[in-house]
Amino acid sequence: MTPSLSAELWPDVSPDAARRLMLAGVESFAGRGFHATTTRDIATKAGMSPAALYVHFPSKAALLFEISRSGHEQTLRVTQRAIERGGTPVESVRELVTDFVAWHARRHTVARVVQYELHALPPEEFAVIAGLRRRIERAVRDVVAAGAADGSFRVDDPATATRALLSLGIDVARWYTDRTRTAPATLGRQYAALALRMLGVPEA
Amino acid sequence: MTPSLSAELWPDVSPDAARRLMLAGVESFAGRGFHATTTRDIATKAGMSPAALYVHFPSKAALLFEISRSGHEQTLRVTQRAIERGGTPVESVRELVTDFVAWHARRHTVARVVQYELHALPPEEFAVIAGLRRRIERAVRDVVAAGAADGSFRVDDPATATRALLSLGIDVARWYTDRTRTAPATLGRQYAALALRMLGVPEA
Repeated sequence: MTPSLSAELWPDVSPDAARRLMLAGVESFAGRGFHATTTRDIATKAGMSPAALYVHFPSKAALLFEISRSGHEQTLRVTQRAIERGGTPVESVRELVTDFVAWHARRHTVARVVQYELHALPPEEFAVIAGLRRRIERAVRDVVAAGAADGSFRVDDPATATRALLSLGIDVARWYTDRTRTAPATLGRQYAALALRMLGVPEA
Repeated sequence: MTPSLSAELWPDVSPDAARRLMLAGVESFAGRGFHATTTRDIATKAGMSPAALYVHFPSKAALLFEISRSGHEQTLRVTQRAIERGGTPVESVRELVTDFVAWHARRHTVARVVQYELHALPPEEFAVIAGLRRRIERAVRDVVAAGAADGSFRVDDPATATRALLSLGIDVARWYTDRTRTAPATLGRQYAALALRMLGVPEA
């Protein structure tokens, strides 16, 4: 439980106690799942009392929502910046897959909660997250469709290809561990080449 | 809770009560996670008493192990049969991805427990499952390596390409629901074409 890690993960969240609770929440939810974790478990892990937790988050679900919202906003930002930086559809997909995969590898514990604990969210919060997920998916699909339209890609169904691209990145959160020997950035570049070939860019 | 579904899922398990408990376990673990589920929850869902559960499974972990072992043996069989049927590396990958993806779509609730509740297994049981996973991975990697060797595939790193192929299938269990409009077999064929392109078979 290092304050520096929580500050790195959530630079926009303050005070430090809230970030520590988010980190304790991530570790608990990733380890035993949302439903098996109590607010007392989280508070204890963060070195606080359950009452202190409620100062920052009204409920366990509110804490999960903050972790999920922040994680989805980060991946949306990673996606948008990579696409802008890329410029052409081919370079956008290369940058996007590199960064999206690297994010899921580097942040694998956070990403596991972000990707696999969605259904524990209450309906209203789930709707907010579903909206962020649609924006991520749409950003990727627009690039895939642009590349199909200008002849850069050979794609039968942009929606399916988009789904497959996102799956390659998301699934990294399932299997990547601190002991994985391939560095996040290296894995990102390897997957970017595979992704471009999948879109019919054989020289990738 | 239909006995016919549990019989379809686990034709080799008997008696019917054991299959009903496995189905109740799958639904509970997929819904709330292993740690948040009690043996009482599972027994009640199966219309039985907790004591009756212990007649068939000595513990909740033993039930999870049976679900996991059976699911991994099924995917290993699906993988091996597809590879044999395919013959050439290209056709083997086509058959393999088609069937592996279709299995994860059709059996998405079972697959979710099989793929995402591994770490709840006790060490000895985890070792058995890890062995099955290595056999699945090796079967796929051998086909990828054979295709790289005979010039059918253009692959920089067979291990990474194998990981990506398996990811495409496994991640289907995360997002596929009973409301998904693409049928399992159709999705399997679409992903097989994407997978072959990823391996440098542009005409796929």
